Amino acid sequence: MTVTLDNIRRAAERIRPYAHRTPVLTNESLNQQVGAKVFLKCENMQKVGAFKFRGACNAVYSLTDEEAARGVCTHSSGNHAAALALAAKLRGIPAYIVMPNNAPSVKKNAVAGYGGLITFCEPTLEARESTLDRIRLDTGATVVHPYNDERVITGQGTAALELLEDVPNLDVIIAPVGGGGLLSGTAIAATEIQKGIRVIAGEPELADDAYRSMMIGEIIPSMNPKTIADGLLTSLGTLTFPIIQQRVEQIVTVSEKGIIESMKYIWERAKIIIEPSSAVAIGVLWEKKIDLSGLKVGIIISGGNVDLGKLPWQ
Amino acid sequence: MTVTLDNIRRAAERIRPYAHRTPVLTNESLNQQVGAKVFLKCENMQKVGAFKFRGACNAVYSLTDEEAARGVCTHSSGNHAAALALAAKLRGIPAYIVMPNNAPSVKKNAVAGYGGLITFCEPTLEARESTLDRIRLDTGATVVHPYNDERVITGQGTAALELLEDVPNLDVIIAPVGGGGLLSGTAIAATEIQKGIRVIAGEPELADDAYRSMMIGEIIPSMNPKTIADGLLTSLGTLTFPIIQQRVEQIVTVSEKGIIESMKYIWERAKIIIEPSSAVAIGVLWEKKIDLSGLKVGIIISGGNVDLGKLPWQ
Repeated sequence: MTVTLDNIRRAAERIRPYAHRTPVLTNESLNQQVGAKVFLKCENMQKVGAFKFRGACNAVYSLTDEEAARGVCTHSSGNHAAALALAAKLRGIPAYIVMPNNAPSVKKNAVAGYGGLITFCEPTLEARESTLDRIRLDTGATVVHPYNDERVITGQGTAALELLEDVPNLDVIIAPVGGGGLLSGTAIAATEIQKGIRVIAGEPELADDAYRSMMIGEIIPSMNPKTIADGLLTSLGTLTFPIIQQRVEQIVTVSEKGIIESMKYIWERAKIIIEPSSAVAIGVLWEKKIDLSGLKVGIIISGGNVDLGKLPWQ
Repeated sequence: MTVTLDNIRRAAERIRPYAHRTPVLTNESLNQQVGAKVFLKCENMQKVGAFKFRGACNAVYSLTDEEAARGVCTHSSGNHAAALALAAKLRGIPAYIVMPNNAPSVKKNAVAGYGGLITFCEPTLEARESTLDRIRLDTGATVVHPYNDERVITGQGTAALELLEDVPNLDVIIAPVGGGGLLSGTAIAATEIQKGIRVIAGEPELADDAYRSMMIGEIIPSMNPKTIADGLLTSLGTLTFPIIQQRVEQIVTVSEKGIIESMKYIWERAKIIIEPSSAVAIGVLWEKKIDLSGLKVGIIISGGNVDLGKLPWQ
């Protein structure tokens, strides 16, 4: 499944019975604050509270019955793990999830709650990969990578597709970038639907590997990033990077202060719960490092999973 | 302006240029949790973050030019004060707001931020009323009561009107009750649009004056209520009570625990910010004191103004 607009449209049909068509919200205070007309595509209201369900669902429902019967597997402790577990549950197949044994219990519970079969391992990339490999060989399950997978990228592109159906003629579309699954899917959908649309990414200053990768022209791995935007810690993938190079105008870095301020502003004014990784996209407008004044700007609000007992402004 | 469906429709036309048509959201987890099909009319996303803007706006724009020129006035420290200040600002007229001198600075700032002209007084009902009376005599401003005013009740009814346009054939509609402005407007709109619809109110157990008033058949004043739902502390009005008696099936009381639990659940699952007073309406379903299982239930989410630094589950 190469990532094309046609395939994104097919993915939209494929996941329609399972995923939410999320609302697009606007907020006048926000518009005044940032000097643009902003349209928030609320993937925080997607199943499992994040856009990740789109890609996982598309991957799971793209499998043949024979493949599906053997299940799916991944290593992740975040929204992708929960999304894959739920998609597999809906199709009635097993999801084997490899998680580090130091993952927070709230994340373990989320995955277990969706019926994911968790295998714990040491918290190193090597342990994760070898454990995943063993499970794959034992079960014949299909590996679904969180972002470096064309079925996943194609699925993530359906959010931008819906946004542009609801709000045609956007000047700009902004998404946060971590591994680049959402950004590359968004970039293909947006630039194919609407020639000339500007695709811009937000990235935490403290996890600016994608920014630097774009500058230098090759993937620079993310090294021990320490940002509050914990969904954006990963490095770009070999599939996502070329798409981003080709179709994303620029990556704008956002300070931790900008992330927290814009997150709180959205909670207070738009009355929606967004996670720090989503605020990174708002932060592009908030910090005004680039001039988008007067433009129609769509933003993919990537997710809304936060620990309400531990908020960054407390 | 008597409160009729025709007048509610006219109010909807009158406020349309100024008020938001708020979205109606659904959430599958919530539906499963409470065993009903729930439609959330998101007045937390209304201007000033509460349904109060509808009534205030209808009152302000119902004035003749001559009346309007002298301004409007009220005594309130809550959402109504902010709503009236904003509505007056939009019409370009003064809003005189009487507030107790011990009102939290966040509330003073909100009213001042919308251009309200604040007069502080001692924190007693007598001081508030005498201060308001003096301002009215000095300025000729029109008093706009937070709920015991037919223009206000009529304006509040526009939320239910929109909800039933978006989701026809609801079995039940639930609103919280404090002074009864939202509830009585909702009751008239709903029962006139759709014969047989059940109108139910949620009220905090610790501020159950409306519940007791319905039982005994006369208005029992609210005496020092101590609930977290700080928008529902007031007593019923002489205009709202008869409407509620005639058109509201029952008032269901909700425990503080039920208010906080359902508020947190909505934040976590529906990803929207609601204030405790709104959670009282959710609490009717949450605590299952009455059986609404399998029904289509519309809920007016009354507002979303909370202090993010001081949450009830911390």
